[in-house]
Amino acid sequence: MTNEPGMLGRLTTAIGEAGANILGMGGFEVHSETVVDDIIVNCSSVAHQEAVRSVVEHIDGIEVLAWEDRTFAMHEGGKIESVAKSPLVDADDLSMAYTPGVARVCMEIAKNEARSHDLTIRKNTVAIVSDGTAVLGLGDIGPYGAMPVMEGKALLFKHFADVDAFPICIKASTADEIVDLVMRLEPTFGGINLEDIKAPEAFEVEARLVEALDIPVFHDDQHGTAIVTLAALQNALKIVDKAIGEVRVVVAGVGAAGVAVTKILMNAGVQHVIGVDRQGCVYDGREGLNSSKQWFAGNTNRSGVRGPVSEAIKGADVFVGLSGPDLITVDDVKSMAPNPIVFAMANPDPEIRPELIKDIAAVIATGRSDFPNQINNVLAFPGIFRGAFDAGAKKITENMKVAAANAIAAVVGDDLSPEFIIPSVFDDRVAPAVAEASRLAAIADGVCR
Amino acid sequence: MTNEPGMLGRLTTAIGEAGANILGMGGFEVHSETVVDDIIVNCSSVAHQEAVRSVVEHIDGIEVLAWEDRTFAMHEGGKIESVAKSPLVDADDLSMAYTPGVARVCMEIAKNEARSHDLTIRKNTVAIVSDGTAVLGLGDIGPYGAMPVMEGKALLFKHFADVDAFPICIKASTADEIVDLVMRLEPTFGGINLEDIKAPEAFEVEARLVEALDIPVFHDDQHGTAIVTLAALQNALKIVDKAIGEVRVVVAGVGAAGVAVTKILMNAGVQHVIGVDRQGCVYDGREGLNSSKQWFAGNTNRSGVRGPVSEAIKGADVFVGLSGPDLITVDDVKSMAPNPIVFAMANPDPEIRPELIKDIAAVIATGRSDFPNQINNVLAFPGIFRGAFDAGAKKITENMKVAAANAIAAVVGDDLSPEFIIPSVFDDRVAPAVAEASRLAAIADGVCR
Repeated sequence: MTNEPGMLGRLTTAIGEAGANILGMGGFEVHSETVVDDIIVNCSSVAHQEAVRSVVEHIDGIEVLAWEDRTFAMHEGGKIESVAKSPLVDADDLSMAYTPGVARVCMEIAKNEARSHDLTIRKNTVAIVSDGTAVLGLGDIGPYGAMPVMEGKALLFKHFADVDAFPICIKASTADEIVDLVMRLEPTFGGINLEDIKAPEAFEVEARLVEALDIPVFHDDQHGTAIVTLAALQNALKIVDKAIGEVRVVVAGVGAAGVAVTKILMNAGVQHVIGVDRQGCVYDGREGLNSSKQWFAGNTNRSGVRGPVSEAIKGADVFVGLSGPDLITVDDVKSMAPNPIVFAMANPDPEIRPELIKDIAAVIATGRSDFPNQINNVLAFPGIFRGAFDAGAKKITENMKVAAANAIAAVVGDDLSPEFIIPSVFDDRVAPAVAEASRLAAIADGVCR
Repeated sequence: MTNEPGMLGRLTTAIGEAGANILGMGGFEVHSETVVDDIIVNCSSVAHQEAVRSVVEHIDGIEVLAWEDRTFAMHEGGKIESVAKSPLVDADDLSMAYTPGVARVCMEIAKNEARSHDLTIRKNTVAIVSDGTAVLGLGDIGPYGAMPVMEGKALLFKHFADVDAFPICIKASTADEIVDLVMRLEPTFGGINLEDIKAPEAFEVEARLVEALDIPVFHDDQHGTAIVTLAALQNALKIVDKAIGEVRVVVAGVGAAGVAVTKILMNAGVQHVIGVDRQGCVYDGREGLNSSKQWFAGNTNRSGVRGPVSEAIKGADVFVGLSGPDLITVDDVKSMAPNPIVFAMANPDPEIRPELIKDIAAVIATGRSDFPNQINNVLAFPGIFRGAFDAGAKKITENMKVAAANAIAAVVGDDLSPEFIIPSVFDDRVAPAVAEASRLAAIADGVCR
C-alpha cells in the first residue's frame, strides 16, 4: 500500500462495500514509500473471497503480496498431534518407558487383560470411527475426505473434557466390515465413537458393537444429536409455554440421527411426530422404505399424513431439521402453529437461513457455530465419555444420555431467552456437568468395571 | 523415620547392603518426632524390590508409609496423548476447525485424495501396527500386552524426529487379517510401522503392504534392527581391525529380524554366516524349516555346519543375538576367534550378561539402554520416517536403509572406542543425520509424491 494519507480508509471502505467483515489488521511494516499490512477478512463463500480479493487488487496503490485461506491454513498437516504425557529426558526415563522396563508392564497386562484399562492409553482414549459415507450434510465423500471432521472431533474431545481421541477413517463398504475392523482394534481403545456412517449401516454397526464389546460404544450422530436436541427443546418449550405432550413435531431427515432424535423426544413425552424425507411424509404403507424409514412408518405419523414437507409442516409447533440445505421456505414456517420453533440443524447449510425467518419463528436454532442457539453434539459427547471413563463404564446407557440432556438444559438456568436456549459450546460449565451426570448414571446403572 | 541423628545413615546403609542403588531423595517433611522422606531406589528385579522394601521395613524407627513402582507409575493411564496443534479458543476457531468451515476442506480432499497428505495428519503420522505375537523377547503375549511397547515407540517417534505416531494393536491371527486391516486404515495414516509380528507372517504382511500401498511401510524389527546392526558392525570391525569380507558371523534367532540383519550384512560384504535357533545350526537339508529358516538354509552356512550354537560359535568373529536370554555361555565366547565381537541384543534379557564376558570380548553390544553400545532401533526408525515424510516418499527403499546405517555409523566419528561403537540414543545428531540421508536417498530413488 503506498504510504499516503487516506489509503487505509480507501482499502477498508472497499472491503466493506464488497460485503466482507474485517476481523483483524496487524503486522504493519512501514517502509519509506509503502506500508505492508496483514488483514484478516471474513467472507461468506469461496466466490465471495475471490470477489473481495479482486476488489482489493484493483485499488490504485494497493498490491496483494500474498493471501491465504485461514481455514485451509489451519488444516495444513492436520489438526492433532501425539505427544508424550511425561518427559523423556535421559536413559533412565527411556529404560522405564521403553525397554527393558516396559516388559514388566506388558507381562502384567498379558496376565490380566483388564489391567490394560489402567496401564495403557485405553484408560482415556476414544477411537472416532468413520467410513465417510454420511459426512456432515455432504453425503458419501469417503474416508479420505472425512478425516478433517474426525480430527476436529478429536480436538473437541480433548479441549472440552480432556479425553484423548484419535480419528480412524476406514475403507469399508458394509456393516460387517466396519464391525469386524472395530472389534480387531479394541485392544487399542477404551471407547468407540462412531461418526458419519450412513443409515441403515450405522444402526447395525452400533447395535452389534454395543453387544460385542466391553467398552463404551456411542454413535454420536444419533445419540449426541438426540441428547442436545432434547435439551434444546426442553428449554424452547419454556419460552413458548407449550407442553411437550401436546406439540406437533416435524422431523426432516429420517436417517440415523432422525430416528435417535425422535426416540429420545418420544421417551421424553412428545406424542405427535411426522418424519419427512425429500419425497415427503413417511407413512405406514409408503413403498420402498429402508429400515430407518420403516421405523418412522411404524412409530410416528399416526394420522397418516401424506404429501411434501410443506404439507406436514402446516400447523406444526416444532420443525427439527436433520437433512440438507434449503428444504423449507419462509411460507412453510408461516404455515406453522403460532410461535413456531425451528431447529434447522443441517450442516454446513441449514434447512432454512435463520435470517429469513427471524421475525416469524419464536425460537430458532441451527447446527452452526456462527448463529445463536447452536445445537452442537459437542455439548454432549466429550462429557459423556469423560463420565464413562471416570466411572469405568463398560457401556453408555439410556439413563446416561437422558442425564446428560438434563444437565445441558439446566446450565442455561435463568438466562433463558429465545436467543439462548442452549449453552454456548464454549461454556466451560457444560462438559463437567454432563460428565458428572453421566458418571453418576453409569454407577446407578451398575455398568462399571 | 524417627527424627534422631544417625537414622538416615542406618537407612541408606541398609539399602546399600541390600544391593540397591539410591537414585534420589527428596520431599523431606520434618515434624517434631519424625521425618517423612521420599527415596527413589533402583532395583534389579521385582524380587529384589520386595527384598529391599522388607529390609527397610524392618529397621527400628522406620515405617514405609507408601511405595510405588516407578515404571508402573509412569505407565498409569498410558504414555501418549492426542493434543491440538493449534489453539481452539473461540467460536471463530471452532467454525474453522470444525463446522461449518471444515466442510470445504473435506470437499477439497474428496475431489483430490492426494490432498489428504497436506490437509490431514497423514502428512506426519505413522501407525505402529502390531498383533502382539512377537513382543520384545517375550513372545506371543497378544495385542493387549503389546500396547505399552507401541506407546513407547510412539513417544520415541515424537521425541527424536517430531513424527506423530499412534499405536494400533490388533486382534488378528493371520497375515491376511493384518494386511486387510492395515489397508482399510490407510486413509488415516501417512506411514505404517509394523512391529513385533512373528515370522513368517511378518514377511508376508510387509511384502504385501509395500506392494499394495502408496505410503511408506517399514517392518522395524527387520529393517530397523538391520540398519543399526550394520552401523554397529562397521564401527566394531574398525576396533578389531578385521575386514567385513573375512569375518565369520553367527546369527542366533532366525526369525524376521535375523533374516533382515543377515541380508543387510551380506549386502555390505559379509561372506560367512551361520544361523542358529534353539535346536542349533540351520543347514540345507534340516527337517521342518519354516520360510525364514529356509531362507537361511538356502543362503547361509555354505559349509553345512551342524550341531548346537556352541558348535557354530567356535572360531566365529562375530556373534549377533536376536533370540532370547542366556543362549550362550562364557565358554562359548572363549571358543570364538581372537577379539570376538558379541552383539547380545535379546530384549529384555540378553543372550549373555555383558558383565560375564567383559574381559573376553573385544566389543560388546546389547539391546538394553542400561549397558554401553545399545543397538536400538530408535537410532533408525524416527529419522527414516522423518526423511520419508520430508521427501514425500511413497516407500522406504533399500538405498534409504543403507544411507541411514552409514549416517548412524558416521556420527560416532573420532570418539570410536570399544564402549562407543554406536551413538547414544540420546545423541541429538543421529535423527537429523538419518532423516537427511534417508530424504536424499528417497529423492535420488525417485519415489517421492
